[in-house]
Order: sequence, then C-alpha cells, then structure tokens
Amino acid sequence: MDFPSAQPPTSTPERPVCFHHVAVVGKYHATGSRDAIEAIVHFLHGLGCEVTLERETALNTGLMGGHPVLDVPAIGQHCDLALVIGGDGTMLGIGRQLARYEVPLVGVNQGRLGFITDIPFKGFEAPLSAILRGAYEEDRRSLMTAGVWRDGRCIFETIAMNDVVVNRGGSPGMVELRVEVDGHFVANQRADGLIIASPTGSTAYALSAGGPLLHPAIGGWVMAPIAPHTLSNRPIVLPSTGEIAVEVVAGREASAHFDMQSFTSLLHGDRITVRRSAHTLRLLHPAGWSYFDTLRRKLHWNEGVVN
Amino acid sequence: MDFPSAQPPTSTPERPVCFHHVAVVGKYHATGSRDAIEAIVHFLHGLGCEVTLERETALNTGLMGGHPVLDVPAIGQHCDLALVIGGDGTMLGIGRQLARYEVPLVGVNQGRLGFITDIPFKGFEAPLSAILRGAYEEDRRSLMTAGVWRDGRCIFETIAMNDVVVNRGGSPGMVELRVEVDGHFVANQRADGLIIASPTGSTAYALSAGGPLLHPAIGGWVMAPIAPHTLSNRPIVLPSTGEIAVEVVAGREASAHFDMQSFTSLLHGDRITVRRSAHTLRLLHPAGWSYFDTLRRKLHWNEGVVN
Amino acid sequence: MDFPSAQPPTSTPERPVCFHHVAVVGKYHATGSRDAIEAIVHFLHGLGCEVTLERETALNTGLMGGHPVLDVPAIGQHCDLALVIGGDGTMLGIGRQLARYEVPLVGVNQGRLGFITDIPFKGFEAPLSAILRGAYEEDRRSLMTAGVWRDGRCIFETIAMNDVVVNRGGSPGMVELRVEVDGHFVANQRADGLIIASPTGSTAYALSAGGPLLHPAIGGWVMAPIAPHTLSNRPIVLPSTGEIAVEVVAGREASAHFDMQSFTSLLHGDRITVRRSAHTLRLLHPAGWSYFDTLRRKLHWNEGVVN
Amino acid sequence: MDFPSAQPPTSTPERPVCFHHVAVVGKYHATGSRDAIEAIVHFLHGLGCEVTLERETALNTGLMGGHPVLDVPAIGQHCDLALVIGGDGTMLGIGRQLARYEVPLVGVNQGRLGFITDIPFKGFEAPLSAILRGAYEEDRRSLMTAGVWRDGRCIFETIAMNDVVVNRGGSPGMVELRVEVDGHFVANQRADGLIIASPTGSTAYALSAGGPLLHPAIGGWVMAPIAPHTLSNRPIVLPSTGEIAVEVVAGREASAHFDMQSFTSLLHGDRITVRRSAHTLRLLHPAGWSYFDTLRRKLHWNEGVVN
Repeated sequence: MDFPSAQPPTSTPERPVCFHHVAVVGKYHATGSRDAIEAIVHFLHGLGCEVTLERETALNTGLMGGHPVLDVPAIGQHCDLALVIGGDGTMLGIGRQLARYEVPLVGVNQGRLGFITDIPFKGFEAPLSAILRGAYEEDRRSLMTAGVWRDGRCIFETIAMNDVVVNRGGSPGMVELRVEVDGHFVANQRADGLIIASPTGSTAYALSAGGPLLHPAIGGWVMAPIAPHTLSNRPIVLPSTGEIAVEVVAGREASAHFDMQSFTSLLHGDRITVRRSAHTLRLLHPAGWSYFDTLRRKLHWNEGVVN
Repeated sequence: MDFPSAQPPTSTPERPVCFHHVAVVGKYHATGSRDAIEAIVHFLHGLGCEVTLERETALNTGLMGGHPVLDVPAIGQHCDLALVIGGDGTMLGIGRQLARYEVPLVGVNQGRLGFITDIPFKGFEAPLSAILRGAYEEDRRSLMTAGVWRDGRCIFETIAMNDVVVNRGGSPGMVELRVEVDGHFVANQRADGLIIASPTGSTAYALSAGGPLLHPAIGGWVMAPIAPHTLSNRPIVLPSTGEIAVEVVAGREASAHFDMQSFTSLLHGDRITVRRSAHTLRLLHPAGWSYFDTLRRKLHWNEGVVN
Repeated sequence: MDFPSAQPPTSTPERPVCFHHVAVVGKYHATGSRDAIEAIVHFLHGLGCEVTLERETALNTGLMGGHPVLDVPAIGQHCDLALVIGGDGTMLGIGRQLARYEVPLVGVNQGRLGFITDIPFKGFEAPLSAILRGAYEEDRRSLMTAGVWRDGRCIFETIAMNDVVVNRGGSPGMVELRVEVDGHFVANQRADGLIIASPTGSTAYALSAGGPLLHPAIGGWVMAPIAPHTLSNRPIVLPSTGEIAVEVVAGREASAHFDMQSFTSLLHGDRITVRRSAHTLRLLHPAGWSYFDTLRRKLHWNEGVVN
Repeated sequence: MDFPSAQPPTSTPERPVCFHHVAVVGKYHATGSRDAIEAIVHFLHGLGCEVTLERETALNTGLMGGHPVLDVPAIGQHCDLALVIGGDGTMLGIGRQLARYEVPLVGVNQGRLGFITDIPFKGFEAPLSAILRGAYEEDRRSLMTAGVWRDGRCIFETIAMNDVVVNRGGSPGMVELRVEVDGHFVANQRADGLIIASPTGSTAYALSAGGPLLHPAIGGWVMAPIAPHTLSNRPIVLPSTGEIAVEVVAGREASAHFDMQSFTSLLHGDRITVRRSAHTLRLLHPAGWSYFDTLRRKLHWNEGVVN
C-alpha cells in the first residue's frame, strides 16, 4: 500500500482493472465535494474504466451533463463497482439500495475515516488503483429485513444495515416491549427502548447502550436494551437465522427506527420483525486491511483513554 | 416491630403520641383505597390524634363530608405529620408539595414495599403506633430546585425529588448538551439524554442508565448520560452546593422532565439549571430501619440473581 | 410435562426407550446423594434400561459392588446416554470428558435448577421417561480447545466448556495482554484479566465482567476484559472458526484458568490459544424446552429486580 | 498563565513569594531526573526561596552533598511547600506521608500530565512562579485511614489516597465479602473483589470496575464491586463520615491493597476498615485550574472516542 502515489499508477506494467464500469456516488443530499468527484472520475478514466455518476450526485454537485448518469437501480444493473465518496452514513445509505444487486462498494473519505470507509481522499490513487486491479479484501456484511405488522398485516418493510430500534417517543416513562424469537417468548422488557443491531451496527448506537462489538463474521444480531428497568436485562446475541419480533405492549408514542428511517405512532399490539436479508453488503478494502486495525483506530485502543 | 397487632396498642401504658394532628393522604388521583384510609383514620383516632383528610383524597374516595378536610398548603401549615397511603410515586408527589413546610411523612404501602414507603398495610398498627409515640428514624432527603431559562429569563421553575432529565424527543438522533458547574465548562455530551438525580432518585432512572447508588447522606447529585456517544462519558457525582446548568446545543425536540412533570419543545440555547432546595423531605421510618436493608430487599441482593 | 408422575410411566402403552445403556454419574467428588442415585437407577431398570454407574460415583457413594461400573472413557465407548445428578458444575465436569464420544447428557438437579441441568429431582420420573422415549430437544454446545504455548511448544492442552481466563495473580497491578485473532493483531489490553467464554460460559463469569449473553447457536466466543484500563475496551464477540491467541506481555504472576483448571506461573511471552473443538456437548432437554425460558428464570427477568 | 517564560520572572516587579522554604521531591525510587531537579532548584533559588532536597531524592540522583537535605518527617515539620517532580504515583506516595503535616504540594510532570500533577516540566517557570507568589487554586483531597483487624485487634494500619481493595488472590473462584457501614449490614458480595475509592481514586481502578467519577468536594467514597456475581450489585457512594468494614467470609488467599501497599494472606473473619483521615492532601494548582478541564483532557471527552 505504500508505493509512491506521485508516480502515475498507469505507467507501470500492472494488471488490468477487474472492474470496468464504475459508478461514482457522492455524499448523499450534499452539495460541494464536486472537486473530489471530478478528481476521482478523471483518475478512473485514466485507468481505462467506464465511469457513470449517480443521478442525485450529479444533480447536487452541478456535474449533470458532463458525464453519463444513472439512477441507483440502473447502477445496480449495469455497474461492476460503486465508489462512494463520503463517510459511513453515505456508504450505508447507498449500500442499502445496492445490496440486492450484489454490486461491491469502495469508500473514499474526505474527513475522518469511518468504520467502513477507509481510503483517505488524500492519496487515494495508489490504494484505489490496487483495488481496481484486484488486490482487495472482500468484507461481506449481513443486512436486516425489517417490517412493521399491524392486525396481522405488514404495513411497512425496509432494509437496515446498522440497527432496528423500537423506543419511546418524547413523553416520559418507559415502553414495555414483548420480545419473541421464532415464536419463543424471550422477555417483556421495560426500558427506554430496544436496539437490534447487525455486526456493522454494533459499533454505533448499540455500543453506546452497552452492547458488545460483533465481528462481521458472526451470524447474529445483538439485542441491547436502552436504560432497562430490570438490571439483569443484559445485551444478548441472537442468531440471525431466526425471526425476532418485538411487540409494543405499553407506553405512549412508541416509534421504530430503521437506520435513520423512522416509523412513528406505533400502536399497542404492533409488531416489529427482523430477519436476515438474502442479500449482503459487499465492501472492498485495500489488501492487508484488518477489521481489528479499524477498531483500534476508531476506539482509540492502546492510546491510554485513562492514564 | 413484631409484637402482636391484635392487641390494641392503646391498652398498654405507652408514651403519648408526639404527633397530634395527622393528615391522611391517599394514592394520588386514585379511587378505591377507601377502606384502607378509613381503617387508618379509625386507628389514629384511637390513639387520640386529630385526623384530617387531604382534599383530593377525600374527593376521590367518596369520604368527603365525614371528616375534616384540608388542601395541601393548609396541611403544611396545620398538621404535624402526613401519613401517605400508596407507593413511592404517591409519596414523592405529596412530599414535593409539603417540603417547604417541613412536615414529616410516613408511608403505608398496600402493594409491594418501595424504597421510601416501608410500612406494609397489613399489620400497620404496631409500627405506626411506635412511630407516633416517637420511636422512629428520621431520614432527610435533599430536593432539587430546577429551572428552565430562555434568553436570560427563567420561564419555568419547580422542585424535583428524584431527577431532572434532559433528553431527545421522539425523533431519532442524539441531543448535544453543554454542561457547566458553577460556570465551569464540564463537557459537551452527545447522547439520548442526561439524568441529574438526587440520592433518592439514584435508585430509579439513573440506575437503569448505569449510575451508582447514592446514600441519602451524600451531599451530591449523580449526573448520568443515557447511551452516550463517547464511551468515556461516565456517570459523575457532583456536589449539591453548586449550580449545574445544561444547555441544549443541538438536536430536535429536546425535552426536560422534572420527576414526572415535562417541559417539552426546548429550543437551542435553553438552559436547565439544578440547585439544592433550601428544604428537605423528612421521612420517618420505624425504629431500627436501615437504608441498606431497603436496598438489599429492593435490589434482591443476596438472592442469587445469577446462579 | 405435567401429566401426573404418581401414575407409573411404565404402565401406559408408551414407545420403547431409545437409550438402552444409561450411565449414571453423581455429583463429582461428593459423598451423599446415594439415595437419589439409587432411586434413579431403580427407575431406569423399570424402563428396561441397562444401567452402569460411573466409577468415581460408585466409590464415593458406597454403591460399589451392587451395580456394573465403568470409568468415564468406557462410558463414552459403551453407553448411549449419561444421566448426571448434580448441578451445572457437575455437568460441565463430566461433559468435558464425554464430549469426544458424542454421548448425550441429561441433568437431574437436587438443588436449584441450573442453566443446563433442568430436571428437578422431585418428580423426575415423567420428564425422564419422556426423554428416554425420544421426546426431547437436543441442544448442542460448542467446546473450546485451549493450549498454553512457551517458546514455540505446547506445554498444556485441555478442553473448556465455559471459559478460558488469563488474569493477574494475587499481586496488585494489572496484566498486559496482547491479543491476536488468526495472526491479526487485535489490541494490547491492560486489565485485571481477559475472559474468553463460549455461549455456555456467557452466563457465568463473562456476564459478571459485563459481557453479553450469547445464544448457544452463535458460532462465536465473547472476549470480555475484567476492569480494563482503557474505557473503550469493550467486550467483543469473535467467530469461533479462527484461533484466538493471548500473549502475556507484562504483569507479575499471571495465570490461565480453563473452566476450574488452573495453569499458574505464566511467563512473559507465554501464549494461550483458543480454538473450537471438533466435538460438541450434546445436552438433552424435555420436549418444549426453551433456552429463553431458562434465561428468564435464572436471570429473574420479569420479576422486577428494581421496582 | 501565558506570559512568556523566556523573560526571567524575577525581573518584573512582582509580589514576593508566599512559600519560603520549599522541599523538592523527585520520582520515588527513580534515578535520572537529576537535570530536571537541578533546573527547578536553581529556579527556586532565583525566586529567593530556601530549597531542601528530600533525602531519598538526593541519594537516588547523586545530588547528595550539594544541597541541604531532609527526610520526609523533617520536611513536614520545616517546609512550607513540597514540589514534586514526577507523575500522579509519585505525588500520591509523598502526599500520603506529608498529609499529617498539612504541607501543600505542587506537581511538575516530565511525562504525560496526570489527574493531579498538572504543570508540564517544559515551561514550568511561569506557572510555578505564579503559584509561589500566591496565585493558585487550593484543592483539598480526602484521605482514608484503613486498618486490618484480626480477632478484635488491629494488625495493620495505613493511609490510602486512592483506594482500598479487598480481592481474591491468584486462585480461581470468587471471594465472599460481608460489608457493614457503621455496624449496619449492607450485603454479602461474591465477586473478584471490592474497591473502596476516594474521589481522587475514583478516576483510577474504581473507574475501570464501572464506578462513577466523584468530584473532590464529595464527602464520600465509592464502593465498587469487581465482576460481581449478582448483577444488581452496583457501585454505591457512601458517606465518608462513617466506618466501612469489609469482612472476608469465604475464598482462598484474599488480599487487601492500600494504594500500592499490599497485605496478603487474609484469613476468614479478618476485617478491613476504612474511615476518613483527620488530614487532607493539599494540592496547589495554577490559578484558573478547573477539575473539569483535567477530566476532559484525561478522559478524552469531546474528542470522539467513537465516531
């Protein structure tokens, strides 16, 4: 990973690229970042790739017209790789939409590196060139298919990459949630709420609520209560092969949140279900990438958080 | 405490009662409990006490008319003791109103014993008789005076016995709160919210959020974050001699809660302040009462929560 | 499970037993329990089973001579089922030895029910009869193969069912442990110690140290630090497909513990390794058994640990 | 604090020093640091102070002979200020010995700043000059008087500044400890051990075990269990006005640790007691110092430990 990027990577007799048609996706709903996108498009052209801009990206950055443009479903059908410029949030937003097409994603980050976006914009050329030529680690992440059921009918369905949260609304007092796994009663929990997180989401909200880190290869979800009334209500790791159902038993104004999408005004008796999606998120990292290196960097391990 | 209550306590040559005018307060806003109240009133008359019903209690139980009735401020001015029939919530509700009058409270509980209501209704005669004759442990609890400030003006002020909570509303995402103590910057916290709890409140919501227990003699509050973004944001015990100020910096629909009273729709820049009240809650417990016995019973210590 | 046990189960025209040769194992190294063992042996004979006593059990209870006796390896080779009378500790002790033979185990408990021993001695006849006739839930538990390596050589190897712990000895001060997974550096941890627990062990020591519960179907171990110096050193769930290695970097008198077996006097540079055993523990539970029912009962969920 | 230290502080017409006889103490039992000590001694002479070296410091650094030398008790009797060069550990070691003499301490740190040593060696002149002239914040810290009692007799007594720990030795298995406060039974705790920490010690081991931060003005200790068997055994803040007694009920090789001093081989029935010392540690910090600034810096608040 450390050969000098000043040297144009195309001048060396290297392997040809394995990804021929690359979609470039910018920070979702964000203006700016136009220069970064143009630099990356230019670089990809230099490698001989066909490059397409995601439609919203092109619209928001004023790059509409100068490049081929596709919307997300068309990218899923036609492109070999999606190159995402932004942070973990951008990656999750586009990843959720592309998951069904099995298009792999690479993240280039203009700010602080994230848990899954690990190529810094400054000096992106060398690692990106290597990935495009096939020197990468593939990192598959499980996705959750989640639904809201009322009176026996599914009234909302979506995919979540980080977590599904059922919690109380703004009014004080706890919600009471009845949890079942594959039809087996688990517990009635009184708490501020309940987080069901994938391995990818285990470093986000669930971690704040006291949940463990889950390695991406774990075939399970962590279910972590938020401020539970019963002190022995501890986070539990459940297999992702089954169905988790959370029923709202009591509490006012309960809501469900799927990553950042919200479904408010849950009624007593509504059930939120979580299953493993048939699809996975395919992330490509530079060769030599290690999940643990990322954890260490993001969680400031070995830096003496307390003296 | 275990001498037989079948024997009328007035028949033994005991010390006269120290509390002559006793107010009886029932479970707030609750009907029922009429029989319990009548039994206790009858018992107090037998001991030679003057007995007055709290107005709402009399109205809700259909006992209006048969007994002298006073509203809470008048009870504060005229009675020597308030006998509260209900749980911890009832006790806190009436205690908050009576605190300024320094009237001591005794709790008789028809259901499961609480942290501060520790005389079971069944067999109340012996322990109550003993307390009224002066054999009691006095247990003073600190109260919080809390306010909401907007544009330099105080727009809400109240007393809280358990806790002051500033948290996000029903929308997803954290609030960001800036904390100061006596004008010293403490931290900007991103979390679901922040709980500032008295020793009395340390066994309630703050405990669920990971806070420690505070013995009632501790002159401090515990400030506990709820699901904090930064893992080293740990609960901190602050002296109650100073002023804690929490400013809403970011986040939608933040609210403040003072025990169960809510102040919603906080704006960015609003400040919630907490100081120690000049008054304390005076609780009377049976002689031999120990705070630790209560903790052990309520937290199921020494019962093997895990084998 | 609720049909009356007063009625002799052998009198009804039921299915024949599926387990013909049953070994009976008593509480390890314990005297007493002779009556319980004799009652169960008698009952098994009544069902038409061939019954063998484990040698140590026979010796310790004075039952040597009256029954066929085998040592544990012979039980592994010749018996269809091991019936263990005792608690979780007894079950784990014998289970670890029988694992390689794939002999299933059933636990009958004379005291408080455990996480894996769930048939109460009182009334054992009906559930045991049902299990022997094939009405059971099989619950396979992963085992850990653990080793201690010094100067490149394995100097100790064993099987653990609950956990492998590396910790400081009696002297004050932390140990420093370097963790690797499949050769990838994870972190240097300074702490009192580190627990690597199986799903079975996740309800034991690891839970006390803040680890999550792991459902038995999770193909992973939880690694939980004990009182870690760095506050962001949180429990992590690692896949059991790889090898975890823990190296003692600093600290006096470090020890390793494999369930209750100890290996003391670790030197700096010693490595403790954990892999998944090729064998599993086969537990048989009464039909209708649910892991979650056991959790609820043992962790006192839904009983209001705090009011 | 920010005026240039290049300018000799003695050249400006400043207030005279308030501390005339200053003892200089170096890192305990450490060689080296000779240059730092000489620079500081020279600087103090320039301010007109009488300067004395602590005997061990002079011996270990080869400075014996060139300067007046006193042992710690004599420093306590004759000096106005102790200037400690080292980290928090050095400060605690000397502070414990000087506490009875009420000599204030200032810490100059050659490495990473600590919780109580907050003047960096580089550029020490300006802040030290200001403190010596009376511009400082005094920060008094409570100390613990701890004892070990066997068969009714005190067999060991010492002072602790951070914490008193009772824990299991190197053998596996928990200790069982019976806790009393002022003769009231609190609980029997089964755990790896129990930490009783002062506010000063609340940022050390007790924090790793899940205890809260205690502001130095809190008149209490935090008692935090280490990996407690019972999940509802939570840290509790106890008033420092009373006596805490911890009795060893069960467990092998239990030890007690007082800061870094150890008392091993506790017997069943031994009692460890903790009371507040009549003395306090007097720390002087630069004017404008805030406890919260130190917490923020040391705990990396507001730096995004997790993204």
